[in-house]
Amino acid sequence: MALGWSCALLPAFAADPLLERARLHFDPLPDHPPDRPANPVTPEKVRLGKTLFFDPRISRSQAVSCHTCHNLSLWGVDRQETSIGHAWQRGPRNAPTVLNAVFNLAQFWDGRARDLAEQAGVPIQSPLEMAASKAYVVQVLSSMPGYLRLFREAFPGEADPVTFRNATLAIEAFEATLLTPGAPFDRFLQGDPDALTPEQRKGLALFMDKGCAACHMSLNVGGNGYYQFGVADAPPAGVCPSTDPGREAVVETITCEFVFKAPSLRNVAMTPPYFHSGKVWDLHTAVAIMGSAQLGLRLAPGEVTLVTRFLESLTGRPPVVTLPELPPATDRTPPPAP
Amino acid sequence: MALGWSCALLPAFAADPLLERARLHFDPLPDHPPDRPANPVTPEKVRLGKTLFFDPRISRSQAVSCHTCHNLSLWGVDRQETSIGHAWQRGPRNAPTVLNAVFNLAQFWDGRARDLAEQAGVPIQSPLEMAASKAYVVQVLSSMPGYLRLFREAFPGEADPVTFRNATLAIEAFEATLLTPGAPFDRFLQGDPDALTPEQRKGLALFMDKGCAACHMSLNVGGNGYYQFGVADAPPAGVCPSTDPGREAVVETITCEFVFKAPSLRNVAMTPPYFHSGKVWDLHTAVAIMGSAQLGLRLAPGEVTLVTRFLESLTGRPPVVTLPELPPATDRTPPPAP
Repeated sequence: MALGWSCALLPAFAADPLLERARLHFDPLPDHPPDRPANPVTPEKVRLGKTLFFDPRISRSQAVSCHTCHNLSLWGVDRQETSIGHAWQRGPRNAPTVLNAVFNLAQFWDGRARDLAEQAGVPIQSPLEMAASKAYVVQVLSSMPGYLRLFREAFPGEADPVTFRNATLAIEAFEATLLTPGAPFDRFLQGDPDALTPEQRKGLALFMDKGCAACHMSLNVGGNGYYQFGVADAPPAGVCPSTDPGREAVVETITCEFVFKAPSLRNVAMTPPYFHSGKVWDLHTAVAIMGSAQLGLRLAPGEVTLVTRFLESLTGRPPVVTLPELPPATDRTPPPAP
Repeated sequence: MALGWSCALLPAFAADPLLERARLHFDPLPDHPPDRPANPVTPEKVRLGKTLFFDPRISRSQAVSCHTCHNLSLWGVDRQETSIGHAWQRGPRNAPTVLNAVFNLAQFWDGRARDLAEQAGVPIQSPLEMAASKAYVVQVLSSMPGYLRLFREAFPGEADPVTFRNATLAIEAFEATLLTPGAPFDRFLQGDPDALTPEQRKGLALFMDKGCAACHMSLNVGGNGYYQFGVADAPPAGVCPSTDPGREAVVETITCEFVFKAPSLRNVAMTPPYFHSGKVWDLHTAVAIMGSAQLGLRLAPGEVTLVTRFLESLTGRPPVVTLPELPPATDRTPPPAP
């Protein structure tokens, strides 16, 4: 009987050619952070990193935190074309989500940060964003015994654990836990043929047939390569502004403009607006632009809809996050600067 | 034996005259919201209210939420002299904490809002804060099926539950749950004579002897009356700016300037800066100013320290808050306005 059941299931399973094909391109998202020997994810480091992530006091105004632009109630983004930072200044690019970002090959639209720790240090010091300095952050954190305790626990054995570098390593460890497993597409990849609707299956087939999966593949359905935006056809006016050269500004050997990291499409239906410019609010429109700009295809409206339905199957379960209680300030903690 | 035990305890208990005296002035904080027949606190209303509290999309920029200034990781305040709102404008007064605010006799420094629901509607519409309008909020919320569901559950039986008024009632219900019971002073009032340190006991005695408890009394150790700031002596320059008349602007029959609600002192050690101007960062300094301005007393430095130690015993357990997942926007949801 057991054998009979097994035989009855396996052929049906093996007989789904769409699933077999999808497995060549994609992997399901794990529900735990990857092993990263350079910065192991320990509960103590995650606790410190979460506290730092929510703490506006490490910004110059003491009013902007990582969470301001990477709002975990809003799928790790801020629903702004480009983010609002210190003194209501606008950044130059749309804020990418922190969710699943640990699986990207590098961070920022132009990949200029090797990992999440390097990334975390940049907005804190950017005059447009948190407008602080390394010295200021260390001064603020060192003024609070509560932080000293958290750093000691997160970096045991270090004589002087309250450093800017350790702060960013802790933020990286926290962010590495911000995963969204359990999307319908993940359940499909794990062998449940009914996890996708008939429309989503057609959309997935189109996604592979038309060439989308050439850049948006693997674990994060993207986030693992750099490509010129507009390689086949120029995107609509404003969507790829001429003022932003992209990765050319980071890597000298790139000789064409407008090269950007292909973003992860996980939870993409939840994170408008789209593209590095944040100029497109509607996912259908974004899909149609990708078809023409990247693939030289004028996708039929029905095809755009089917691909969009497939992209909706990439929405997973967001992490449950309890607000940290931030360590109390002391009379050595500097007041906010104007 | 049971009788003997009881007799042994009671005399010790009754023999703490400080406790007996304190009980004439103060009540311990409950761990559950008060019964409010006009707006019963139901789990469904709390759920909706919490979602609204964290949602920046009901502001004009879609970047400012209730939580921006009433940060629940920072004891319900923002650690700013006066809050930063829409387009980085500064409000005129220091943001009071939402924690335990349900027990205040009215809301705002000048008491111009009768309750938390009335209060919640004001910053949403203030051009300095969230800069939205009632119609805009209803438009935003009505665009999301997820909100429609939350409103229907919170206000069952209503034909058209998505209203601005219901949004503020739900926020009130959520805020009514934001209590901080279990402070050392509460445990003292509940009969544990060891809950206060010897210094805190002396500070409590001074607090009553000197007259502080005349205005800061009852459940919230304040928050239940209006008094002129500087009735005995002018506060230091800038602490009570001449540009802010206080409650005079709200109630015509008040004929003296600078009348404000005496704030609750619960968790006061965690919520600098102090006074409606937010000009004082150090709690010792605030206590000394209160002594001279309100009581006409030049408190000795040792007395100031003892009263401060007592105020530190008013720090309770902050509520544990899990971030809500905000309902997804749709193509009918307006994008942020500049």
